[in-house]
Amino acid sequence: MEIAALKHVSDSIYSFPLSNNEIEIRLLTKKDDDIKKVELVYNEKYKFHEGVKHKRINKKCDDGIYDYYITRIKLKDKRFAYVFKLTLENNEEYYFSESGVSKEYDIAKGYYDFFQISYINELDTIKINKKLQNRVFYQIFVDRFYKDKNNNNPRINIKWGDKVDSKSIAGGTLKGIEEKLDYLSSLGINAIYLTPIFSADSNHKYDTIDYYKVSRDFGDESDLHSLIKAIHEKGMIVLLDGVYNHVSRSFPFFIDVIKNGAKSKYFNWFFIKGNKVFEEKMNYETFASCYYLPRLNLNNLEVQQYILDVGKYYVKNYQIDGYRLDVSDEIPHAFWTKFKAELKTIKNDIILLGENWHNAHAFLNSGLEFDSIMNYAFTKEVLNYVAYNNTNALDFKNRLISNLFRYKGNVNYNLLNLISSHDVNRFLDECNNDVDKFLIGYAILFTYIGVPCIYYGDEIGTDGGYDPYNRACFNWNESEWNYKIFNTIKKLIQIHKDESINELEININAKDDILYLSRFNKTNNITLIVNLSNSDKKLNISDEILVQNNYSNNILHNKGFVITKEDSNYEKY
Amino acid sequence: MEIAALKHVSDSIYSFPLSNNEIEIRLLTKKDDDIKKVELVYNEKYKFHEGVKHKRINKKCDDGIYDYYITRIKLKDKRFAYVFKLTLENNEEYYFSESGVSKEYDIAKGYYDFFQISYINELDTIKINKKLQNRVFYQIFVDRFYKDKNNNNPRINIKWGDKVDSKSIAGGTLKGIEEKLDYLSSLGINAIYLTPIFSADSNHKYDTIDYYKVSRDFGDESDLHSLIKAIHEKGMIVLLDGVYNHVSRSFPFFIDVIKNGAKSKYFNWFFIKGNKVFEEKMNYETFASCYYLPRLNLNNLEVQQYILDVGKYYVKNYQIDGYRLDVSDEIPHAFWTKFKAELKTIKNDIILLGENWHNAHAFLNSGLEFDSIMNYAFTKEVLNYVAYNNTNALDFKNRLISNLFRYKGNVNYNLLNLISSHDVNRFLDECNNDVDKFLIGYAILFTYIGVPCIYYGDEIGTDGGYDPYNRACFNWNESEWNYKIFNTIKKLIQIHKDESINELEININAKDDILYLSRFNKTNNITLIVNLSNSDKKLNISDEILVQNNYSNNILHNKGFVITKEDSNYEKY
Repeated sequence: MEIAALKHVSDSIYSFPLSNNEIEIRLLTKKDDDIKKVELVYNEKYKFHEGVKHKRINKKCDDGIYDYYITRIKLKDKRFAYVFKLTLENNEEYYFSESGVSKEYDIAKGYYDFFQISYINELDTIKINKKLQNRVFYQIFVDRFYKDKNNNNPRINIKWGDKVDSKSIAGGTLKGIEEKLDYLSSLGINAIYLTPIFSADSNHKYDTIDYYKVSRDFGDESDLHSLIKAIHEKGMIVLLDGVYNHVSRSFPFFIDVIKNGAKSKYFNWFFIKGNKVFEEKMNYETFASCYYLPRLNLNNLEVQQYILDVGKYYVKNYQIDGYRLDVSDEIPHAFWTKFKAELKTIKNDIILLGENWHNAHAFLNSGLEFDSIMNYAFTKEVLNYVAYNNTNALDFKNRLISNLFRYKGNVNYNLLNLISSHDVNRFLDECNNDVDKFLIGYAILFTYIGVPCIYYGDEIGTDGGYDPYNRACFNWNESEWNYKIFNTIKKLIQIHKDESINELEININAKDDILYLSRFNKTNNITLIVNLSNSDKKLNISDEILVQNNYSNNILHNKGFVITKEDSNYEKY
Repeated sequence: MEIAALKHVSDSIYSFPLSNNEIEIRLLTKKDDDIKKVELVYNEKYKFHEGVKHKRINKKCDDGIYDYYITRIKLKDKRFAYVFKLTLENNEEYYFSESGVSKEYDIAKGYYDFFQISYINELDTIKINKKLQNRVFYQIFVDRFYKDKNNNNPRINIKWGDKVDSKSIAGGTLKGIEEKLDYLSSLGINAIYLTPIFSADSNHKYDTIDYYKVSRDFGDESDLHSLIKAIHEKGMIVLLDGVYNHVSRSFPFFIDVIKNGAKSKYFNWFFIKGNKVFEEKMNYETFASCYYLPRLNLNNLEVQQYILDVGKYYVKNYQIDGYRLDVSDEIPHAFWTKFKAELKTIKNDIILLGENWHNAHAFLNSGLEFDSIMNYAFTKEVLNYVAYNNTNALDFKNRLISNLFRYKGNVNYNLLNLISSHDVNRFLDECNNDVDKFLIGYAILFTYIGVPCIYYGDEIGTDGGYDPYNRACFNWNESEWNYKIFNTIKKLIQIHKDESINELEININAKDDILYLSRFNKTNNITLIVNLSNSDKKLNISDEILVQNNYSNNILHNKGFVITKEDSNYEKY
């Protein structure tokens, strides 16, 4: 047994409550180690000294490096103490506790070093966010979605549909979005995430000048009220973009600091070296290296209160459903815990979605900060497997499983999965316009665990590389749409919702370089089968086929996929 | 290379800021793996695509299972991106990123999966709590420390010094403590932690009836004011015991629930199954299985506010320095984050010390909950090595190192180390009254990293097994004291403070079953050498000896120790 490979800690991704009376315990061991049997040796926490019970734990999956032994247990008492007993192939027995691995374990002294669920506390129990389930998100870059006919904004500087550059103002508005809600509804969309909409100079509005004013490029406050009302009337939810890491250099408080230096009452709202702002020297902290985006000091309690008020304002007065939070991983955890707690007092099921590209365990696993993140780790794996073809089905499966176990179980149901956005090349561009690959990407998106998000225009075959080219004007000329893409995505959306895919458990396998991604419950089993092996594969599919591409006569051609439906024979954990 | 043994994650114990401009990075590998070189491949986060730098990382220690590669880096920019490059003995090279281990690594796409310090934020940076440094704590079980002469409390039911039982009321008071502050001061004590002092029936007062009233067994509010003032005048600090997990069954709000059932406005302050309290059925949650200690529902925002107010009250009105928090690991993290944030607004350097017997990573490593815990994991290792002699010097060293790396670096300087308390047998009892062993335990306590705590009476040789026998009356008859113990502990306290041991780095080694526990900085090196090998050992100690037991003529006898002082030749990380 490779002791150094054992992974388990209490009150972590390895040991957590799923609900008020059920816990999940995970033990990682080296893949294919000489372990014959894993048992949980356990009792109620205050009865551990009275004796213990044993429960065998089965291996549920592997990621190529680790085997995952996972069990779920319903509890009577909310306090639970345990150690692991590992029996090797040669019948040697070991115990694994907080003190590490030992041949003997003194159960009577276990109160010093057993693992534990110290207490299941409602507030610390991460649940599936019900409001996010069976949602299909649509991300709208507001300036480029739809320009309502009455928009005579003099700042518009390109004709709708012309090639954009970083300074283009095309004229999309909130009214425009409202006019097109029927389109989104008929596509099957039931959740919208808007890039920023508040007063700012740029087309993207990530350079806020006034958090309390809708950008006049996009409309006014009554347009926002009207749009949100219309969204809710269609049974959709809406997230606004919360840009709190930085502001525009034209933000009034920063202007005040530019004018008055250290004498400004807002001097400590920013991070300035010296007594005075020198923009050319950039002697202050900014987002990335952008001198025009000074960073807010959210370590300052006054600034915290200001942003807390902003955050609460739109929840209270506009009934938004939550926020996507820009550059969220550069803002203090100490702020996010307050932000979540305060917003929850207004709307208990508030949705907070971080822009975390990396392993976001520290933002998601406490349950005190975000419900969700933009799952760019998923994006990356899909790019490698589908677009670049530089991983095979087994690699892809291994990486997905590894990523799933970054988080406590229920977190994965809440993550926002995406393969295109305003911050990366469109997925069609990454696929070199190969529509078959593109559709596999979306088929994976819609069957994977979590909440799928379509970037506006992807559904009609909009192309475009890195910023600004991924931000083209939506092409409303339907005759120019790619209907193979449109119809397949529409079908995928429908399957996702009809089969309540969000609510199903997940199982991922790879065999003969074919990917099998299953979602299942006791009665239902939806499976996506993908062939990116560079050769055609013979498959005898007897189950109902819900949607497919490049499958015929029992041959799943290279770059083909099918989604099947059958009665489930999987057992739950 | 054993890939399954590699341990590293961003924003965790493996990667964290130490200050506003310095970070620590830790990589664990399998001990003695075939790794020739570990390098950090890094750059500022927003310059990672422009190229990278390399820095070799050295192995600092091992715990028998893992080698610990550790480096500290001073940053210009507060955002830092990195991956590891591992060169094997056979010269094969591997990269280790968030995507795992690979032969190649595409640095230009690193923004998807490099490790990172996303930003050093002041509020998330765990610092050494300055108020805890160079402190020696003294835990007082109030009823048993000193009975002032005017105490005619009719509830007193034993003569001072008689054998106690669980119902004994011996008559110790706050005034009694104040009278004995000179004793504590002359012993070298400069920090006091009092077991609970508020209105309650029992002698231990963990069954609160009124959080706003000092128990009349111990005195009154003016006694508390007077005591705290006297403590502060002596340059000492004081922690009160915050008992928020549960209350007494006689707590007025629980009485109200007993009377009015589900109609009581306090019904949801507790966890009651059904509509009515049945004490004999214990149909409500309690501490452990004690029907008389109903558990408070700190998931309820009203209850949170009530306890927040209690917590703030004594900081604001009595200027206490902080709290020891009872049964802290059973209370929601969501509550503790608020408690810490709110108390910090009154006293920025408030000390919150959890009663966490187990790995408390989830309470300590965010910096948003506790500063410290009662380090019972340390207690356990000292028991095994010193009292029970069932681990050797190497085991002990390995377990201490493993425990140190449960926490971010600065946390260890704040932990409260103890080997006796009201909740465990006195250490002298655990040592079967072997004074030599006992003194080794205290020698380790005073040289180990963290803040040492003496349980009242240990310093004079008070004996006693498990509760209630560990709670004997302090014996003020000096002729009955054990002066070997008293003088050695007094000397250890003096060394601890004179040498500013709390501020030094730590290095632990074992050789020939001798333990070497060093504390060092650039100029100074204090080393504790312990022999528990069951045989005498020849040691040529040429350095200054600060204190010793059982050492003579270059022989460190079994059960002997020396503490030496020499010029340092250690390098910092």
